[in-house]
Amino acid sequence: MDGIWMIDAAKECRPEYVKGSSYLPPRGEREGLRTAEDGQASVQGFVHRIRPMGGVVFVVVRTGRALIQCVWDGELPDGLCEGACVDARGVVVEDARALDGFELKATSIEVLSRPAAPSPVPLGRRRLEASLEVLLDVRPISLRHPKERAVWKTEEAMLAAYRTYMSANGFTEIKTPKIVSAGVEGGANVFKLDYFGRPACLAQSPQSYKQMMVGVYGRVYETAPVYRAENHNTTRHLNEYIGLDFEMGFIRGFEDIMKMEAGMLRHMMATVADVCRYEIDLLEAVVPEVGKIPVIKFREAKELLSEKYGIKNRGADLSPEEEVHLGQYMKETYGSDFVFVTHYPAGKRPFYTREDPADPGFTCSFDLLFRGLEITTGGQRIHDYDRQVEKMRSRGLDPADFESYLMMHKYGMPPHGGLGIGLERIAVQLLGMHNIRHASLFPRDTGRVDP
Amino acid sequence: MDGIWMIDAAKECRPEYVKGSSYLPPRGEREGLRTAEDGQASVQGFVHRIRPMGGVVFVVVRTGRALIQCVWDGELPDGLCEGACVDARGVVVEDARALDGFELKATSIEVLSRPAAPSPVPLGRRRLEASLEVLLDVRPISLRHPKERAVWKTEEAMLAAYRTYMSANGFTEIKTPKIVSAGVEGGANVFKLDYFGRPACLAQSPQSYKQMMVGVYGRVYETAPVYRAENHNTTRHLNEYIGLDFEMGFIRGFEDIMKMEAGMLRHMMATVADVCRYEIDLLEAVVPEVGKIPVIKFREAKELLSEKYGIKNRGADLSPEEEVHLGQYMKETYGSDFVFVTHYPAGKRPFYTREDPADPGFTCSFDLLFRGLEITTGGQRIHDYDRQVEKMRSRGLDPADFESYLMMHKYGMPPHGGLGIGLERIAVQLLGMHNIRHASLFPRDTGRVDP
Repeated sequence: MDGIWMIDAAKECRPEYVKGSSYLPPRGEREGLRTAEDGQASVQGFVHRIRPMGGVVFVVVRTGRALIQCVWDGELPDGLCEGACVDARGVVVEDARALDGFELKATSIEVLSRPAAPSPVPLGRRRLEASLEVLLDVRPISLRHPKERAVWKTEEAMLAAYRTYMSANGFTEIKTPKIVSAGVEGGANVFKLDYFGRPACLAQSPQSYKQMMVGVYGRVYETAPVYRAENHNTTRHLNEYIGLDFEMGFIRGFEDIMKMEAGMLRHMMATVADVCRYEIDLLEAVVPEVGKIPVIKFREAKELLSEKYGIKNRGADLSPEEEVHLGQYMKETYGSDFVFVTHYPAGKRPFYTREDPADPGFTCSFDLLFRGLEITTGGQRIHDYDRQVEKMRSRGLDPADFESYLMMHKYGMPPHGGLGIGLERIAVQLLGMHNIRHASLFPRDTGRVDP
Repeated sequence: MDGIWMIDAAKECRPEYVKGSSYLPPRGEREGLRTAEDGQASVQGFVHRIRPMGGVVFVVVRTGRALIQCVWDGELPDGLCEGACVDARGVVVEDARALDGFELKATSIEVLSRPAAPSPVPLGRRRLEASLEVLLDVRPISLRHPKERAVWKTEEAMLAAYRTYMSANGFTEIKTPKIVSAGVEGGANVFKLDYFGRPACLAQSPQSYKQMMVGVYGRVYETAPVYRAENHNTTRHLNEYIGLDFEMGFIRGFEDIMKMEAGMLRHMMATVADVCRYEIDLLEAVVPEVGKIPVIKFREAKELLSEKYGIKNRGADLSPEEEVHLGQYMKETYGSDFVFVTHYPAGKRPFYTREDPADPGFTCSFDLLFRGLEITTGGQRIHDYDRQVEKMRSRGLDPADFESYLMMHKYGMPPHGGLGIGLERIAVQLLGMHNIRHASLFPRDTGRVDP
């Protein structure tokens, strides 16, 4: 046929571009600059700022990750304005005064498209001074600001580091359904939907599926949305967030899970410090050293909080205030930004949590606090069928309602456990932000479902 | 405090384990075998088969990925049975007759847990002979069969290869909300839910969000669930599937998108052939060479189908039968397992699709067929605000309903486009399966929401 032409995949798939996830392009290219063999360079992006300066004009171009200063000598091209998309070509000149130490002496600037209106927020300023409400209302635009978009860029690196670490430790990545049978989860905090005439809901966690998959691959992990229909408005809750979950079989104790997380966090933070230096500097954040992480039992944490800070709280959980103080204490005493709290009371943990035979009434479970905020909940699960059935009955649950969940226990499961981490929570603590909404590209809270 | 102990992240985070996603453990370790310095080896897993043979007993252990044959001389340990979880220790002996050419001469087998009942499907057989219905009913167990679990294992490699390629080509990974405003999507094929008293639905694609994010990072991609409430039961549709989406700005034409996909697919298939050799062999699949991919206009494809196969179909899409014949023709004529079909009629493509100025009434859009099945839909989008508003009006849509979508066009967008790929569809074609349900860990169809 005449009309057929060919795309040569071999030509498109440049081997130097697929060296693995750790590939980092060289400086300049990283910022969005392309250099041809004849020394001509080009950059494509949005016009971030236009500033006339002593006969020449500085046109700052915002690429996908950086700002590149272009110097233009002469009359500005037709249609050039802030917010326009351009293709600028010229020669790279080293200049210590310029952003990143170089600028592009432009010989041509082609205008690819023009906005219909000027930006509703001042993208060209160093800081985007506006209320959170306004920033979220125009999120597709406010995210274009270098500082706003830097937040997710670090989360992207965390995600990649998480996967790399899990994969290197023999975990298989899984993708489990988010539409689940209403029978298994239940409770008030689920979003309900109609699934072809039967009741279903959105998964509050991949808990049951990741346990099932331990019976298949031994060690599994997932990075996926998690849904909580909690009808309260705080600075630390989202109704849809990204959960980093893993579950591992053949453990000798729940300490194996904490150790896996400790190693992962060390790799994650080292990765962020390495590949996101630009964003970390821009946001003036401090990446923690992940070294020795203290571990304390829940009861002892309560005693410590009472002794040192005079907090009397008999609740079966730590309050936000207690978390902050405990984090402070561990930082001051052990120099650690992290602390594991273990052995939560059995009554407050889910029906699948294993009790510690050496400490009846308390569980082989833990939370991890990062700078005074809980970012992880995990623990060892019950793997024995009879014990799980008995535990359900003792809680007033009918095992018949959990048939597909109990299948794995019935036909054999190894000792296992796992955890769930809230990605946005790590980010909000790492970057020192005061509201978790900043850490989600398009946050979902009780009042917001658009954009 | 007395009760505090330390986990040393530095000790847990073994540097040899974090070399990047391309890290492959050596043979033996890959199969789940651990070897200590004194030559003692150990393996943990499920007892897959027990077979007495001339005085000794072969105990085949199913690890997370492979089968390891253990030889046991003497009386079987108490409680050992098929489906039990064990920790076997001993010495590795090379033996050409054994699985993978080696076996473990076991000196101890510790039983870690026992099933409450024998498996409802014969996991120890080479083939799991059972109806799809039964396999799905006991999915947590049937997935334990080596051939069943091999399917997702190749999809895991595809996912990783996709991300590596996108990342290496300057794409930023994004995570966009799946609970979206009912206003933007609409139509009959959405799952509706109540979001704190207002109507919302599950995203049919990340379309609007990935376009918005082009305005932020220039090039973006996502791997996430996609929801289609299509009330029909076919072998090629799932109601929840994994979408591999990308969107790229500053394109010179929609050919740039097809070229990016061609390169990505080449890398993906090479990766699968490399890291999933075990699974590919087990499933007797043939990994395609991704080389020159033919491209044909929709109209010409219709002509070809009419001329060569006598198919007369004036529909504005290709039927499944037409897809099969077109795929066949391209394989026979050009040796390609893939074919791009471009320039679909404007009336049948979404409101954001750009028309080809050189071919009025037809769009800068394409589908990609793999072995006769559509696996991708993509194209260039309208980036100009006035043109997009006008297009909406011409379709009877009110631009006021799309305020947050149109924000990006209003304040400036580069020429851009992208695509969406169904992960399970690639897998079903690559592995020669006859029903897409095999390619989903826990498929969601009109009749199934559990397990």
